[in-house]
Amino acid sequence: MLFFTQCFGAVLDLIHLRFQHYKAKRVFSAAGQLVCVVNPTHSLKYAPTRCAAAQTSAEQGVLPPCHHHEAVHDPQLVPCTCPLFSCPWEGHLEVVVSHLRQTHRINILQGAEIVFLATDMHLPAPTDWIIMHSCLGHQFLLVLRKQEKYEGHPQFFATMMLIGTPTQADNFTYRLELNRNQRRLKWEATPRSVLECVDSVISDGDCLVLNTSLAQLFSDNGSLAIGIAITTSKVHNAEAEM
Amino acid sequence: MLFFTQCFGAVLDLIHLRFQHYKAKRVFSAAGQLVCVVNPTHSLKYAPTRCAAAQTSAEQGVLPPCHHHEAVHDPQLVPCTCPLFSCPWEGHLEVVVSHLRQTHRINILQGAEIVFLATDMHLPAPTDWIIMHSCLGHQFLLVLRKQEKYEGHPQFFATMMLIGTPTQADNFTYRLELNRNQRRLKWEATPRSVLECVDSVISDGDCLVLNTSLAQLFSDNGSLAIGIAITTSKVHNAEAEM
Repeated sequence: MLFFTQCFGAVLDLIHLRFQHYKAKRVFSAAGQLVCVVNPTHSLKYAPTRCAAAQTSAEQGVLPPCHHHEAVHDPQLVPCTCPLFSCPWEGHLEVVVSHLRQTHRINILQGAEIVFLATDMHLPAPTDWIIMHSCLGHQFLLVLRKQEKYEGHPQFFATMMLIGTPTQADNFTYRLELNRNQRRLKWEATPRSVLECVDSVISDGDCLVLNTSLAQLFSDNGSLAIGIAITTSKVHNAEAEM
Repeated sequence: MLFFTQCFGAVLDLIHLRFQHYKAKRVFSAAGQLVCVVNPTHSLKYAPTRCAAAQTSAEQGVLPPCHHHEAVHDPQLVPCTCPLFSCPWEGHLEVVVSHLRQTHRINILQGAEIVFLATDMHLPAPTDWIIMHSCLGHQFLLVLRKQEKYEGHPQFFATMMLIGTPTQADNFTYRLELNRNQRRLKWEATPRSVLECVDSVISDGDCLVLNTSLAQLFSDNGSLAIGIAITTSKVHNAEAEM
């Protein structure tokens, strides 16, 4: 019995160590589900930010590129695909995945259901937590962003985007689930396409939104676990049956 | 066929009329679920508000009564049970239901699953939408409140409270669900007791919180439909089995 208790303690210590180690992105399986530890990307160090540039353009009467897809002549050109708050990169849809992997070292996870464990939730806004998720033959992007829409009141915004066109995105449904302390919060929606720009999805508030107090209720020791599941939507199923 | 179309149109008109008629609380069954139209209670006309009084007390270094249950000698005395934003009523737990029915004319609905249809979501904060829900041998209170926690940025807070003690409340789980436009948001939690005061639940943010943009996404023609379900929690089931 004592041996068992010690072994169990050692396993717990090991898990704790894996969770605590800073600046590493690791994947392990717990209770049959893939858990991915995602460290934050604090983006204040980069300047000028895309958003600041967009704001400047707006002040000068020029609309930011995010809201002007109709002005882009090549429909495959992605004006602001990189979801990192300050990355000015623009590129074609086909090379978004390699940009995210190579430039930002964002991991790709396989599997229909995964757990996204965002660490260091206390870090000041703006901060991003990002992972790519390969599932049902497509790549999705989960973006969790801490941002101050209203000065002094940071909020968390979580959304899933398809690295594909809006038409392709319509075929899927994603679910984000928080579950802790006898509370559960679920958000289900159709993913948006990265062509639609993550910044505008977040500014529209069309995503899972958490106040700091709710984020704290769902966090454990500064980390927030988000369960992610992607399914094909009914429309897609009906089309497949026809 | 023309006759059928006209009949169907007349039924639709009737339903529309029932939804639109202002200042009436009505209950009808749609698709097997009980739908209750709940009109807002705008509370600015009452003065001084309980919250203003609490704030004044706090500014003077006196904690508001809501956070001072330990100072109440009679454990059955409810210092701020009435969830209406400005009602200064205090009373014993046994008479809360009759106070809410008689003074505020709040309806009681029967049934495990109901749909709460809050009208006129555009009204300025502070506004309350309230209904009582009789289910599993107890009375619950659903409070939807529009409030400006941060000036100029109204938010919607929805919570369910048991008109009973915290120990009784622990035996239940409530679920609030919004479902519209291919988006779904679910909140599940243990109801709080009315002895814990709805104001503090909302100021703690331990409830379903909606930004104006999310509330608009889920609203239809200025009305927000919230599906409500109450179940006994596992602890209670385990106890019942023993």
